[in-house]
Amino acid sequence: MAVYTDITEGQLRAFLSDYDLGELLSYRGIAEGVENSNFIVHLDGGEFILTLYEKRVNERELPFFVGLMDHLAGKGFSCPRPVQRRDGGAIGHLAGRPAAMVTFLEGVWPREPLPAHCEGVGEALARMHCDVGDFAGRRRNGLSLCDWRPLFEQVGERADDVIAGLAAESRAMLDRLEEEWPQDLPSGVIHADAFPDNVFFLGDRFSGMIDFYFACNDLFAYDVAIALNAWCFDADHRFDRQKGAALLAGYQRARALSDAEKAALPALCRGAATRFMLTRLYDWIHTPDGATVTKKDPAQPLAWMRHHAGVSDPGAYGLSE
Amino acid sequence: MAVYTDITEGQLRAFLSDYDLGELLSYRGIAEGVENSNFIVHLDGGEFILTLYEKRVNERELPFFVGLMDHLAGKGFSCPRPVQRRDGGAIGHLAGRPAAMVTFLEGVWPREPLPAHCEGVGEALARMHCDVGDFAGRRRNGLSLCDWRPLFEQVGERADDVIAGLAAESRAMLDRLEEEWPQDLPSGVIHADAFPDNVFFLGDRFSGMIDFYFACNDLFAYDVAIALNAWCFDADHRFDRQKGAALLAGYQRARALSDAEKAALPALCRGAATRFMLTRLYDWIHTPDGATVTKKDPAQPLAWMRHHAGVSDPGAYGLSE
Repeated sequence: MAVYTDITEGQLRAFLSDYDLGELLSYRGIAEGVENSNFIVHLDGGEFILTLYEKRVNERELPFFVGLMDHLAGKGFSCPRPVQRRDGGAIGHLAGRPAAMVTFLEGVWPREPLPAHCEGVGEALARMHCDVGDFAGRRRNGLSLCDWRPLFEQVGERADDVIAGLAAESRAMLDRLEEEWPQDLPSGVIHADAFPDNVFFLGDRFSGMIDFYFACNDLFAYDVAIALNAWCFDADHRFDRQKGAALLAGYQRARALSDAEKAALPALCRGAATRFMLTRLYDWIHTPDGATVTKKDPAQPLAWMRHHAGVSDPGAYGLSE
Repeated sequence: MAVYTDITEGQLRAFLSDYDLGELLSYRGIAEGVENSNFIVHLDGGEFILTLYEKRVNERELPFFVGLMDHLAGKGFSCPRPVQRRDGGAIGHLAGRPAAMVTFLEGVWPREPLPAHCEGVGEALARMHCDVGDFAGRRRNGLSLCDWRPLFEQVGERADDVIAGLAAESRAMLDRLEEEWPQDLPSGVIHADAFPDNVFFLGDRFSGMIDFYFACNDLFAYDVAIALNAWCFDADHRFDRQKGAALLAGYQRARALSDAEKAALPALCRGAATRFMLTRLYDWIHTPDGATVTKKDPAQPLAWMRHHAGVSDPGAYGLSE
């Protein structure tokens, strides 16, 4: 939650001069997005979100992200739609950073997800997985199975300073995941970060998905596993089977999971929990004290990982027969 | 720039149930306001700013602040207008904090003020000083002359750890100010914090003033002195006489300064610079490293104070004859 880069009116007017959106009425920095700086911009032509991409986003990958949002919005999927400049492009520069404007989405992200929200995000992910079928862009998942061990080894024994025994536990889980990871499941472009703060609702109704900056090619069922982790644990880190059932039923309303995908869910959930535990652990150790970035505690996904370690039957997630 | 308190949709819906503003469409935390948490809220009934008052704001003083905005808006002064609940009140509670909703103001605060902006803020302050003539509320300025020495003594010799020699320099300035401070100038409710980030413009045109949470009863010309400090120094801490002239001309378009007010400007400018130097010095020393609040450097108002220390002729600020 931060605005890393503030902008002047002069800089913004110069940027907007490439668009046909009328006069600038206001802009306000919003406390949203961990990676980038975001502003709500009011123009004669409507209300938009302006994003300045900070250094963690690779500028060469922006056409993939912006193209994906444009493709999905064109299919009727509710997500921010990049606004075209007069020259047809959608990525400009502002305050020395790549920047893009997208449409404003109404909706609220659920701070306390209910089963109806889990059903909604499940169905939305399935629709996205169908809608990317004819999207030409490709992006390697830079946080896939083969990246986890090198990431962990940059932390190594210091993991034990964060949580006693975590180094050995992580290595054992990586051994297991390398052994059991599924092959040949249906794949395509996934969101890969569908946490509650990236999914909007109006009441119980899904109203839009944002923040596609982790999107990449990977197994569709892995996206489901990420969401099962992100949406279906309660505050005490207990898995809520009712929410899991809602999420999976919502998903299968728009796209049926194959038997192989269902069977792989426990391993995929272990992997998803491990991926978030490892990146949070890495950030925990490498973020200096006093930085303005909020460090996310690796203890939460570790609790998820430990839960999934004991699951062999995908029915435990609430899959209906 | 922060959202100190996040809120859930359920909390917000409960709060909104006391208003006649239709359905909730979205809310986003905005990076605005050093003291409070602010959200842009979209409802069927329009767009509003929701403020949660954090602990530095005294709840007993809220009726003064809210009443002042309501009074000024009623006079046609452009500022946020508090939204009345069905019961006629304007202050509720949300997430354990007092909270109020005000209308959204279009406009942009000038990151790099031009003379036209200085003229605009001058005229706006003068209009406010006229419009408060029949406002019944009163609030003592808790940061007036008599408060500065006790505030400084909470820092004392530690001032020298921040800037060498600052303790003796501060005491000498306080001696001088106590000696020279003007009496019997016109007074009333002033904004007391009219810095650029609290004043909006559409292009060169003043579009609204926000953040009345330092407003209090004090000398009108002291409000002008605060603005001369806040708007008319360049990045190198040099006073820009052209901006000063614009600010004073703008002010006098709506309210003429008396000869006594003009003569007092150098002392009032010294006092205003000292007030901001002292509060920033206090915060600098008392804010723990690593806090998420951005600490403002006392060196900037100290440079203002040193500039004004050498001014005896108010013409130096750009007063026309």
